Amino acid sequence: MRSFELKNRTSPEDIKCLRLITAIKTPYLPDGRFDLEAYDDLVNMQIGEGVEGVIVGGTTGEGQLMSWEEHIMLIAHTVNCFGGKIKVIGNTGSNSTREAIHATEQGFAVGMHAALHINPYYGKTSLDGMVAHFQSVLPMGPTIIYNVPSRTGQDIPPHVIETLAESSNLAGVKECVGNDRIKQYTDNEIVVWSGNDDQCHDARWDYGATGVISVASNLVPGLMRELMYGVNPRLNSKLLPLIDWLFHMPNPIGLNTALAQLGVVRPVFRLPFVPLSVEKRIEFADIVKAIGREHFVGDKDVEVLDDEDFFLVSRY
Amino acid sequence: MRSFELKNRTSPEDIKCLRLITAIKTPYLPDGRFDLEAYDDLVNMQIGEGVEGVIVGGTTGEGQLMSWEEHIMLIAHTVNCFGGKIKVIGNTGSNSTREAIHATEQGFAVGMHAALHINPYYGKTSLDGMVAHFQSVLPMGPTIIYNVPSRTGQDIPPHVIETLAESSNLAGVKECVGNDRIKQYTDNEIVVWSGNDDQCHDARWDYGATGVISVASNLVPGLMRELMYGVNPRLNSKLLPLIDWLFHMPNPIGLNTALAQLGVVRPVFRLPFVPLSVEKRIEFADIVKAIGREHFVGDKDVEVLDDEDFFLVSRY
Amino acid sequence: MRSFELKNRTSPEDIKCLRLITAIKTPYLPDGRFDLEAYDDLVNMQIGEGVEGVIVGGTTGEGQLMSWEEHIMLIAHTVNCFGGKIKVIGNTGSNSTREAIHATEQGFAVGMHAALHINPYYGKTSLDGMVAHFQSVLPMGPTIIYNVPSRTGQDIPPHVIETLAESSNLAGVKECVGNDRIKQYTDNEIVVWSGNDDQCHDARWDYGATGVISVASNLVPGLMRELMYGVNPRLNSKLLPLIDWLFHMPNPIGLNTALAQLGVVRPVFRLPFVPLSVEKRIEFADIVKAIGREHFVGDKDVEVLDDEDFFLVSRY
Amino acid sequence: MRSFELKNRTSPEDIKCLRLITAIKTPYLPDGRFDLEAYDDLVNMQIGEGVEGVIVGGTTGEGQLMSWEEHIMLIAHTVNCFGGKIKVIGNTGSNSTREAIHATEQGFAVGMHAALHINPYYGKTSLDGMVAHFQSVLPMGPTIIYNVPSRTGQDIPPHVIETLAESSNLAGVKECVGNDRIKQYTDNEIVVWSGNDDQCHDARWDYGATGVISVASNLVPGLMRELMYGVNPRLNSKLLPLIDWLFHMPNPIGLNTALAQLGVVRPVFRLPFVPLSVEKRIEFADIVKAIGREHFVGDKDVEVLDDEDFFLVSRY
Repeated sequence: MRSFELKNRTSPEDIKCLRLITAIKTPYLPDGRFDLEAYDDLVNMQIGEGVEGVIVGGTTGEGQLMSWEEHIMLIAHTVNCFGGKIKVIGNTGSNSTREAIHATEQGFAVGMHAALHINPYYGKTSLDGMVAHFQSVLPMGPTIIYNVPSRTGQDIPPHVIETLAESSNLAGVKECVGNDRIKQYTDNEIVVWSGNDDQCHDARWDYGATGVISVASNLVPGLMRELMYGVNPRLNSKLLPLIDWLFHMPNPIGLNTALAQLGVVRPVFRLPFVPLSVEKRIEFADIVKAIGREHFVGDKDVEVLDDEDFFLVSRY
Repeated sequence: MRSFELKNRTSPEDIKCLRLITAIKTPYLPDGRFDLEAYDDLVNMQIGEGVEGVIVGGTTGEGQLMSWEEHIMLIAHTVNCFGGKIKVIGNTGSNSTREAIHATEQGFAVGMHAALHINPYYGKTSLDGMVAHFQSVLPMGPTIIYNVPSRTGQDIPPHVIETLAESSNLAGVKECVGNDRIKQYTDNEIVVWSGNDDQCHDARWDYGATGVISVASNLVPGLMRELMYGVNPRLNSKLLPLIDWLFHMPNPIGLNTALAQLGVVRPVFRLPFVPLSVEKRIEFADIVKAIGREHFVGDKDVEVLDDEDFFLVSRY
Repeated sequence: MRSFELKNRTSPEDIKCLRLITAIKTPYLPDGRFDLEAYDDLVNMQIGEGVEGVIVGGTTGEGQLMSWEEHIMLIAHTVNCFGGKIKVIGNTGSNSTREAIHATEQGFAVGMHAALHINPYYGKTSLDGMVAHFQSVLPMGPTIIYNVPSRTGQDIPPHVIETLAESSNLAGVKECVGNDRIKQYTDNEIVVWSGNDDQCHDARWDYGATGVISVASNLVPGLMRELMYGVNPRLNSKLLPLIDWLFHMPNPIGLNTALAQLGVVRPVFRLPFVPLSVEKRIEFADIVKAIGREHFVGDKDVEVLDDEDFFLVSRY
Repeated sequence: MRSFELKNRTSPEDIKCLRLITAIKTPYLPDGRFDLEAYDDLVNMQIGEGVEGVIVGGTTGEGQLMSWEEHIMLIAHTVNCFGGKIKVIGNTGSNSTREAIHATEQGFAVGMHAALHINPYYGKTSLDGMVAHFQSVLPMGPTIIYNVPSRTGQDIPPHVIETLAESSNLAGVKECVGNDRIKQYTDNEIVVWSGNDDQCHDARWDYGATGVISVASNLVPGLMRELMYGVNPRLNSKLLPLIDWLFHMPNPIGLNTALAQLGVVRPVFRLPFVPLSVEKRIEFADIVKAIGREHFVGDKDVEVLDDEDFFLVSRY
């Protein structure tokens, strides 16, 4: 494979300057396969509103529910259709080093601009093992490390990040532990994106974060862009009810429900995700009205779907 | 597939009575493939010391580092070679409902006696989604649910277990949250195995647990059997230094190092796992002497291996 | 893996003495997954009528339409349920040496008694390459080599077989080229099974063949057994119309149609196979009457199914 | 997935006009993985000499020795790096309809311009089954049907092609049966590429073929282009010794040996392919001299490699 250094035309610097990256939703057909038409529309809406990068198959995009074959195909498709307009960052991380290596090689071979890597969740490892894991993939191209102990069961401590930062391929860190941790990095000139929509405005303007890797920007890309391009505590406050609603259940349950209500994706869930309750769906419709339908993606009226409108698929 | 109900001759009652189940280690050849000869020896040692069941490809057996193909093969191999002597419980759980369904169908088709299922780690889901996930696989055969929030990032609360207990296929729960939680279940006649070696003696004798799903029994199966078959606080105390050593780093790092030092598996690690430091390896040799070499599996002298004795494999 | 030599308790001699081996049909559920209940019934019928071995996932069993995962699972399932009563020969051959090695390792690991191997069809290779291909898998256990140039596009010439016969693992050859070729082998004490139902009686009694690997025995196992256990030209003639009918289209199209008409499998076809025309289905009902329903598997009346009774599945 | 109609910007007309398409070689690293640097160089040489399209993972490119994951990745890589300069035709055919559907969906999703489809080799089927097979994939995008009975064991008869030609997606036929068959199609305005290098000049100029899908053009792209762009019986004769040499053993054995001798790929063979004998390697060096080194790809001297220079890999 060894060709990634020559072929990959993206330098880590091209990644480090991105302010708004969306962890893009993967929409499905009723039989559970990808709905590429809806996906392409979603990405086009992101591009139209000034989003600068997408994470393909992140936890928001439900990479953990994809076969690697599907996953790499989606990265390749995104590069092929949109790679000239937006940075494509493939979530080729895994708790298995073998899988992370294989997927990352494939991802760079099909043209992704950067990789997102997670520490070994669930299986976990020692800190030495964690460093060895990341160093197996870091030479392949620009890399963002993702720290989310509430999902992985294990924090990536700063000294691990500092060790990895010796590689010029480390573009930066997606950090969910909080703004104090972010400051610890930015004080040392390590690039950080906030991984928490509710903290990202302050992260950006008070703690030195470069930007955000956002879930909410799937819904309101233009507003999230405003947050990242100018101090705006009022807008930030206005968005908080939406963000609270989005994350009161594990992401992307709220996002999936919301995008279906906005009519931009079919109401199809791959298990183990199931839609929010009708009470919460009514709440979303109210939130949309409060913020203004025109700020959300799509152009249909927001709907409160019935339970029977949803397809739950477990074999696909 | 639909044949599991008729074909699977194991009733949940045959699982509920097991007191000592080992989460068996998967040994490797230097190229990273399974070392089936060493594996067969390990299982035979377990049988010889009175272990009643094995978890194949659990987190201890590094199921998360296997392809499903390897994983199902190992279950089938274990059934074929040892199914008449020991209960074979396949860890066919996954954070993807699709994968859990597929693997569990395959596992029962190749003759496993029960399935171990985990809640969707890392990706997580709502409690409704968690129930839907487990109910997708529960009809297939005897099932043990595994709760380990320190790995999954999400507790399985008692009311979820109580909902699942309505199915006669629920054999019980492998619980790692602690002995109070265990009591909550055993008071309601739900079978529980302790998932913590350090708590299992008390769990069994003071909190109503049926037994243990053990890591330490890979090393000292006979002693762990004693703990489960008679009140023995002295033996329990004697084993605590070993257990502390085993778990001071994420499992199975200690176990892998120990079995290599005992000469019963090759010193091969699949990344992201790496061996313990030489200081810790010396400590293990001392622990073996304190407890008595004769209680441990294998018959070679315990060795303190050098760093260069170990093979770390990332492509396999 | 290296354990196959020790673990595989089948000696090639146990394979060499089999006279009637059925290339067993794989039945499907309407969604295209395996119908294991129907499969188990089919195998039980074979055992009941004195069949001594089955080929799992041969061209008759549509191995080429399975994922390897499905394929190995079916081998393991068969070993687990029936391995004590019948020899289980896995078709772990492939035109890719890598796949043949991997599948054969897995097949022996899950307990199959012997492997069936094909030369590299479609991709083809030189005779040196062919020998290298077979020698990659022959050390793993008892092996039958399958020669069917009308499918592979390339004959396995006798000198290749003679080279392979230096290995004690070569159990014999399934030969479809004809009875003169068979004699060439049996004169040299190489075990051969006829791969042609229409020639197998003569192959057995006049050309030295040990027996047959049969398709027709899926339908009339008892009669095929009679053919292999006593000279019986009258029975042979009586069966020829059935055999001609079975093979007027590429196998297993006729077999699949027939078993559905006999009510022992659901009328489900995985594409690219489609059922025979209604004219041919009527013909089959007549053939059954002529030979006698009681000689065929199952106990329902033979039916002439309508076109709309069949399910054709392309995604499964 | 349904997006192929909208997203695939290639019309079948863009494929029908290609005169010189190379069935491109897949080069390997010593461990058997793809050598993407060498691959990129090969494709660049093709583009530089005026080749208009490549078949990725054809029998020449050893698609049958790839996992589908590798195969789709290579298609995506080729589209991403070279899709603006050369038409990328993915060999997403299979003898399994399921696999053909899945691979073709993925191939178009990652941007391939057309699919190459084979009839079900080895497993075979009825003509009705053959039509059903092709019609499962034809709606997805521009398609070339490949007829090579010497590999598949089954001819695609003209009436099957005529049925398929009712679809506007049928770009044409790669025909290996001979020039009379080609004429039968071209008389009916069905586009045909010769699949036989030795017949392609006459096919083009005397039998109405549009062009050639060539193996020899891997070696001498410029000369093959001359053959397709002007009547040139002298050049045709001059190339015949090379073509005879290339095909005296099953393709791509000769091609693989030749490209290694030219120093443009590493001398690595995936089994079941093995290099030509040293006698034949000497012969190749002589042929290169006779035709002129400058007409061949690469710029190193042609070498006669030793047996020990070659790597044969069976696990990769």
